[in-house]
Amino acid sequence: MSFQHENSGAERRTITGFSNPVVKFLRSLRDKKHRKREQRFLAEGLRLLTDAREAGILPETLVMAIGRDPHPLLSELEAAVHAAGGDIIEMDVDILAKVTGKDNPQAVAGVFAEFDTRLSNLNRNAAPIWLVAQALRDPGNLGTMLRTGDAVGAGGLILIDDCADPFSVEAVRASMGAIFTQKLAIARWDEFHDWLRTGTGQLVAASLRDPTDYRQAPYAAPCFLMVGNESQGLPAAYEQACDLRVTIPMLGRADSLNAAVAGAVLAYEALAHLRKP
Amino acid sequence: MSFQHENSGAERRTITGFSNPVVKFLRSLRDKKHRKREQRFLAEGLRLLTDAREAGILPETLVMAIGRDPHPLLSELEAAVHAAGGDIIEMDVDILAKVTGKDNPQAVAGVFAEFDTRLSNLNRNAAPIWLVAQALRDPGNLGTMLRTGDAVGAGGLILIDDCADPFSVEAVRASMGAIFTQKLAIARWDEFHDWLRTGTGQLVAASLRDPTDYRQAPYAAPCFLMVGNESQGLPAAYEQACDLRVTIPMLGRADSLNAAVAGAVLAYEALAHLRKP
Repeated sequence: MSFQHENSGAERRTITGFSNPVVKFLRSLRDKKHRKREQRFLAEGLRLLTDAREAGILPETLVMAIGRDPHPLLSELEAAVHAAGGDIIEMDVDILAKVTGKDNPQAVAGVFAEFDTRLSNLNRNAAPIWLVAQALRDPGNLGTMLRTGDAVGAGGLILIDDCADPFSVEAVRASMGAIFTQKLAIARWDEFHDWLRTGTGQLVAASLRDPTDYRQAPYAAPCFLMVGNESQGLPAAYEQACDLRVTIPMLGRADSLNAAVAGAVLAYEALAHLRKP
Repeated sequence: MSFQHENSGAERRTITGFSNPVVKFLRSLRDKKHRKREQRFLAEGLRLLTDAREAGILPETLVMAIGRDPHPLLSELEAAVHAAGGDIIEMDVDILAKVTGKDNPQAVAGVFAEFDTRLSNLNRNAAPIWLVAQALRDPGNLGTMLRTGDAVGAGGLILIDDCADPFSVEAVRASMGAIFTQKLAIARWDEFHDWLRTGTGQLVAASLRDPTDYRQAPYAAPCFLMVGNESQGLPAAYEQACDLRVTIPMLGRADSLNAAVAGAVLAYEALAHLRKP
């Protein structure tokens, strides 16, 4: 952690200068390298921070714009952060704009500790569906998959090989709060495959190489639904290691769907099958 | 059109300076105001331009990087543009980077005339499914909906009220070529609704306000599937004007899906119903 001060959690601090080290620290969290070093990430907006609070997760540092409109949820959030001994900082809205990189920043942002993303933290039997993304490069797609996972009652998202950073501002924003409610794991393929095969779990690939229609497939819980990289799809060897390869019909000229869309179409289909009595 | 030259379509021209008016013209097409004034848009990459060519649409101006790798599809494209009397321009890769706004530009880009986006151009009976988006603000979501439309064999995408510009570089890119294969119409709600009711067509809203499960709904072709704005959803009055309101289950904490995801889940469900014998 890069900054400390004496009256931690006791008072609001006000920052008025762009060159304040706290501002520099907050801005640095927009950069992956700094996020990884600090093990911290930034989430913006009252809605997102309220989602986090309702999921039992509070920011270590709460940043609010001076002159913001009062809001009961913001008061509750501030009280909760205060009670937990967190930092509460006020700053001019133009400084907050620099921090969040948006011209019209939300009135509030928070710094959170990154979550533990080891596979060993997952309880595979806690949910009927898990989403798995391999080499997913677009942070918006990644956040959208988290959001979809929340919607289908998935346990979480497992990121295989080199994916976008789930703690980037874009991914957090696209997740619409699901970053705080879905479990998240990051692993290499071999590591994931080894972990998966130590227990129950059906691994399903969205594939173009198999004739099994995704509507007719025998999904079984816990069902791990895997989509591949935006331009390459899944490696053939990964597909072969799956229990099931299912194909979503493509009636047009294109040969693939957006990765987050493919994951969602598959997840809703699996959900309907698994909910049948 | 902002530039002309004598030997139109006869020869390649080479541009080496950043201040060349052609470069300025091309760069201006990244800006919506200029696109609207010129009625032209930019598409990048050999794959996208080949999709366009296969759909019978050629760029008025083909721009290629000097020192690009040869490719048979690029040769075919160049020959087709040449035969059609289009402009062919070569420029340094760093100038092309300025044009496309990408550090690693694709080796080829094209300037296309914007399509006619009047509702009256649509033949509603040409396809069983049409996608409709209301006040969709994100160009990536818009392009993704075009891509999904292609995949489900939809006729096209109808944009209601103030949507993102479908001819923006981001939307064109996210469409993965479907901008050239899907029909596109832009209209105000009243105009769309009047047009729809002059013929057959079932208007279906993705809604939270109705208990009809999206898997049980009586979809009928031509089926117009409508999703609303990313943060507001559809106006209640629009939903009420629909023939059918269907709900996608939301099992988590969030109350909505990404708009492009909701459209895709709905479109694939409707497709499965409409394809049943």
